[in-house]
Amino acid sequence: MQDTKTTAGASGPRGSKPDRAAVRKLLDSVRAQGRASLTAPEGKQVCDAYGIPVPQEAVAATAAEAAKCASAMGFPVALKIVSPDILHKTEAGGVLLDLKSAEAVAAGYERIVANARQYQADAKILGVQVQQMLTGGQEVIIGAVTDGSFGKLVAFGLGGILVEVLKDVTFRLAPASEADALSMLDGIQAAEMLRGVRGGEAVDRTALAGLIVRVSELVSDFPEITELDLNPVFATAKGAIAADVRIVVDFAEQPERYRPSEAEILKAMTRIMKPATVAVIGASAEEGKIGNSVMKNLINGGYKGRICPIHPKAAEIMGRKAYPSVKDVPGDIDVAVVTIPAKFVAQALVECGEKGIAGAVLIPSGFAETGNVEGQQEIQQIGRKYNIRLMGPNIYGFYYLPENLCATFCTPFDVRGHAALSSQSGGIGMAIVGFSRSAKMGVSAIVGLGNKSDLDEDDLLTFFEHDDNTSIIAMHLEDLKDGRSFAEVASRVTRKKPVVVLKAGRTAAGAKAASSHTAALAGNDKIYDDVLRQCGVIRAPGLRDMLEYARGVPVLPTPKGENVLILTGAGGSGVLLSDACVDNGLNLMTMPPDLDAAFRKFIPPFGAAGNPVDITGGEPPTTYQKTLRLALEDDRIHAVILGYWHTIVTPPMVFARVVLEVVEEMRAKGITKPIVASLAGDVEVEQASEHLYANGIPAYPYTTETPVTVLAAKYKWARGAGLIR
Amino acid sequence: MQDTKTTAGASGPRGSKPDRAAVRKLLDSVRAQGRASLTAPEGKQVCDAYGIPVPQEAVAATAAEAAKCASAMGFPVALKIVSPDILHKTEAGGVLLDLKSAEAVAAGYERIVANARQYQADAKILGVQVQQMLTGGQEVIIGAVTDGSFGKLVAFGLGGILVEVLKDVTFRLAPASEADALSMLDGIQAAEMLRGVRGGEAVDRTALAGLIVRVSELVSDFPEITELDLNPVFATAKGAIAADVRIVVDFAEQPERYRPSEAEILKAMTRIMKPATVAVIGASAEEGKIGNSVMKNLINGGYKGRICPIHPKAAEIMGRKAYPSVKDVPGDIDVAVVTIPAKFVAQALVECGEKGIAGAVLIPSGFAETGNVEGQQEIQQIGRKYNIRLMGPNIYGFYYLPENLCATFCTPFDVRGHAALSSQSGGIGMAIVGFSRSAKMGVSAIVGLGNKSDLDEDDLLTFFEHDDNTSIIAMHLEDLKDGRSFAEVASRVTRKKPVVVLKAGRTAAGAKAASSHTAALAGNDKIYDDVLRQCGVIRAPGLRDMLEYARGVPVLPTPKGENVLILTGAGGSGVLLSDACVDNGLNLMTMPPDLDAAFRKFIPPFGAAGNPVDITGGEPPTTYQKTLRLALEDDRIHAVILGYWHTIVTPPMVFARVVLEVVEEMRAKGITKPIVASLAGDVEVEQASEHLYANGIPAYPYTTETPVTVLAAKYKWARGAGLIR
Repeated sequence: MQDTKTTAGASGPRGSKPDRAAVRKLLDSVRAQGRASLTAPEGKQVCDAYGIPVPQEAVAATAAEAAKCASAMGFPVALKIVSPDILHKTEAGGVLLDLKSAEAVAAGYERIVANARQYQADAKILGVQVQQMLTGGQEVIIGAVTDGSFGKLVAFGLGGILVEVLKDVTFRLAPASEADALSMLDGIQAAEMLRGVRGGEAVDRTALAGLIVRVSELVSDFPEITELDLNPVFATAKGAIAADVRIVVDFAEQPERYRPSEAEILKAMTRIMKPATVAVIGASAEEGKIGNSVMKNLINGGYKGRICPIHPKAAEIMGRKAYPSVKDVPGDIDVAVVTIPAKFVAQALVECGEKGIAGAVLIPSGFAETGNVEGQQEIQQIGRKYNIRLMGPNIYGFYYLPENLCATFCTPFDVRGHAALSSQSGGIGMAIVGFSRSAKMGVSAIVGLGNKSDLDEDDLLTFFEHDDNTSIIAMHLEDLKDGRSFAEVASRVTRKKPVVVLKAGRTAAGAKAASSHTAALAGNDKIYDDVLRQCGVIRAPGLRDMLEYARGVPVLPTPKGENVLILTGAGGSGVLLSDACVDNGLNLMTMPPDLDAAFRKFIPPFGAAGNPVDITGGEPPTTYQKTLRLALEDDRIHAVILGYWHTIVTPPMVFARVVLEVVEEMRAKGITKPIVASLAGDVEVEQASEHLYANGIPAYPYTTETPVTVLAAKYKWARGAGLIR
Repeated sequence: MQDTKTTAGASGPRGSKPDRAAVRKLLDSVRAQGRASLTAPEGKQVCDAYGIPVPQEAVAATAAEAAKCASAMGFPVALKIVSPDILHKTEAGGVLLDLKSAEAVAAGYERIVANARQYQADAKILGVQVQQMLTGGQEVIIGAVTDGSFGKLVAFGLGGILVEVLKDVTFRLAPASEADALSMLDGIQAAEMLRGVRGGEAVDRTALAGLIVRVSELVSDFPEITELDLNPVFATAKGAIAADVRIVVDFAEQPERYRPSEAEILKAMTRIMKPATVAVIGASAEEGKIGNSVMKNLINGGYKGRICPIHPKAAEIMGRKAYPSVKDVPGDIDVAVVTIPAKFVAQALVECGEKGIAGAVLIPSGFAETGNVEGQQEIQQIGRKYNIRLMGPNIYGFYYLPENLCATFCTPFDVRGHAALSSQSGGIGMAIVGFSRSAKMGVSAIVGLGNKSDLDEDDLLTFFEHDDNTSIIAMHLEDLKDGRSFAEVASRVTRKKPVVVLKAGRTAAGAKAASSHTAALAGNDKIYDDVLRQCGVIRAPGLRDMLEYARGVPVLPTPKGENVLILTGAGGSGVLLSDACVDNGLNLMTMPPDLDAAFRKFIPPFGAAGNPVDITGGEPPTTYQKTLRLALEDDRIHAVILGYWHTIVTPPMVFARVVLEVVEEMRAKGITKPIVASLAGDVEVEQASEHLYANGIPAYPYTTETPVTVLAAKYKWARGAGLIR
């Protein structure tokens, strides 16, 4: 017996160290030969080096040896003639499949050798290859791809055409942890197949997850491996074996990504967002000019720092001393808001650089979005050279409310609070401004990112992470220029503060529109979906959802567990709220008998306890009061959804006041739980909703969906941040 | 050769008449034997009678005959010994599978007979059964079930465990048309599998649809067939053959469903909704009583007919002459609003019956919803006996605005328009009132259905179908007591007017809440989904959606085709609107080159034509004007989605006025197309949205999703009604 691969076994060699040197040597030889992919035997060598189980194989020189090898591997096996002179093995009668016993293997050996001799009498016969054949279990696919934005990703899905049709595959950033890998097994629609259905055995989840982890480590260790497929992998109750491996490589040098350190980002961002001095390049006294709007917003917004208008001729603009260039301004300038036409921006930036300005807010359009890619590259290079961070170009600017700073040409804004929002598009920025004002959503910052020539979502995340004025971050984006970096920062930030992302261009048509709009390549949406979840980011399905999450999530306390209770005066709302809970992955608590009995004491005999607790419509305020108090006092309940029905007995504002009284009473006792409310009634419910919202209970008229999606957003964040169980 | 089934063939005997007499005879014999299911041979007989292809089989008495049979059927075949004395055929060596040639069959015949003789020398051997074996093609399942509400349904799905795990199956009411059946093939997630993937052949869709139709006819012809499974059916490019059939029967008499004729419904509903005289049983002058609220609403609502308070003692209530009983009122009474406690309702109803009153609006609770099932049955029986239609009990009453009729104890309501709404729950009814008032949604009627002891959604549909004051019908429901009847009426009504349904209790948890609330068994949601679509009903996913559809759909003209254009000032909105179009099944028109060139004339050189047409944010009102005019004038564009971005150059109200000017200009030319708008900007966009909406353009601030879902709802209706293509 020669060459038996001893690393391969049904349960895999978990815990063994990967043999990186072996793979390095192999890849170096592939590179030397100028090849772009590995042969099947090379693929197997790579698998062996990383402890990825593959079918066992050995070459036998006698029938007895073949039988012995086969018995060691387990049946069935395949036999294949090994001869440098026989290229078409099947034609030569040199292949036998599905041999199920030692006798059959021994006989098969003799037959194959005889066939080969008959086919070509002078062929040099080295022996017969004995190969373990894989059958049974669940066929799955484990793979790796290289995404332009996120880099190395590991993929998992079931095998077979049907799954391909249904596109039932899931991704994680590589390297993936074992927890990541296990979550992938649950992350496909057909997850139940792995748990064993219709009497089938459940697969060995640890072995399968281990394989995913190993693949993710392999592609991370060797960036030149751009694609890898283990297809199919046979997953059984005893382990997982990759029947076939395909590896594609690319040895071209990848450009280094420009990435300042966290400390550098924080330093520059702090100077930009909390400047002592702001210069307005292109400041103007003339109504209607952008440079005039910016000046007005800075002054009228109440910014307390120094404002320096820059203008070639004017001595003074809007009562502030003007300078021909930033270089003429005495003392330091932290940030320059640039409002001059695109063609003059480069020169102004050089002066900013010479002045040591930390950041430039580039409002003008006329760069990459209009096809002027060179112009954008030019300013990018200037920024790098002088270490100026660039916001934009092609943006509305930004608001930072703790400093009363409206560095924008849009309408002034002063609804102060703790939500920081950003948008890639100006239109969406204006929608944020309008919604925030209308819904009285307190805001710490609104930032336009536009073409993202430099400053990106991860820079903002880093700043807001450390910003005590910000408790939630919501971002509209059409692409991530460096998804890998975003993911790294987001994974860290989401453990402290909720991050909401509205990814536009989710669909093929949307992605097409996105690329016509910003010339950005929109990523595969499924990858975005999986990676954002992996990072603990709350993904908003639409614009209004993002806005409602940003408004509601920071208002809600963090739930301590998964038990949600619906408490409703309207049975009909209870049903719709239950639907919404299921749709949004909230867990309706199973009511313990003692708690059920306790609720029943407060509600009419025909009211429904269980969950929802239906107190029925004709009840006085005290019934809402007593049941809500019970729900908040009982430790087993972690969150409450209120369904209110407008009646004469309990009018809307009476309901609102009763709820707030109970909440106040509980706060005094140190009990805080997330509560949301759906109000069904005549227009007075709008005022009651506003009153509740202003006092910490996100409440919504005429909808049973929004309160539940907002609570669910809080849950998604809390789960991702590891705050629940 | 004996017994060869000649009806069976790979492509099926399409067009042949079913042999009902044969099935009748067979079922009679099953009934006589007291059995609840059919044997496999009986199942095959039923299939034969209905032209459902099954594998061919025959019994051969000689080896030559067996070979001849097999050659006629096509290979492979199976052989099985036929002997009354041999029960365990396999044990006796009496079964051979997968024989692929005439020679193998002849040899097999001899071998089987020899085995059998050896197994039991004295066994009486009648011959050998030759069975066609099915391989290849796509395995599918065709079945039929009997639903408590919808009656006979035909089901279709792919075969295999994976599909079961994914619950990928679709239903239609039986009998199903060929169009219905074809739509089922496209109605599963894995529909692509049937079209041939990865080099696989597409299945014969006509044959497969024919099989579905035949199954649906069979279960409709024979109501005693409660379940039927053809599983698996092998569908290939040449036809479809059912490999196995399972039929379950139930001969118990089904209770007749009470169903007045359409004319009777219409007559009674017209008297109820447009009464000349309304009696208020339990009318009261005392503030806070329900009978007082009803009187106030009738009088203050401006109802012009006669109002007769019924009170045991009072001579007059609120200036109207009172009577001790409806029987004391001179002349006819059309409808009685009943506001007395549950226990007095039965007696009052008897008097209503004796008076010949057409309908009773039963406001009191205390019937089935509180466990008083007998009380509800009692009033039901009185209603039937006297031919009084009952609305409720356990309702808020109803509003019919064309008659200024507020027959309810809730707040009065007078926002007149053309949407008729109903709800099963009082809370949802109040949400309808509040939303309608707040959003200025014009309403023709709001009706509470509550326990639905008699009047049901189909009665309302019948009335609103013929009601010229109503142009859309929107219904909240938790169950359909007679889904079959609803489906029949809805299929007819939706061809004239859009019908929107919010089905609460969609999810397992929601359904549980529904049953605790109304004691109604919530149906399988997938069945509701498929059947509602089959009837042309627009299903609303949530409460707010139902309200927005009811408000927006009647405002929109019916599109003449599928080509939707997005015209946007905000590129960012364009991307989100595109996403929403894909999510909602709208077809973004592929821009023809000439039209693209025409748009490009009006927009800046860096603006993106194609679809979305991105006119860019800095454009003056004339750009919106010229591009919208072009979009409306070009026949190839059928609907327009506007994305507005708030700028100083084109403020919100200017945008609104420009849009309305163009729309007016086009209306004068006879051009009307559905237009919806998404407005991104500061709070002024709220006023602009209202102004647009009031003038026929559904417009929404801070959301890119709602305008698209409303347009999509219009499309869903228009497609279902056959108005597009």
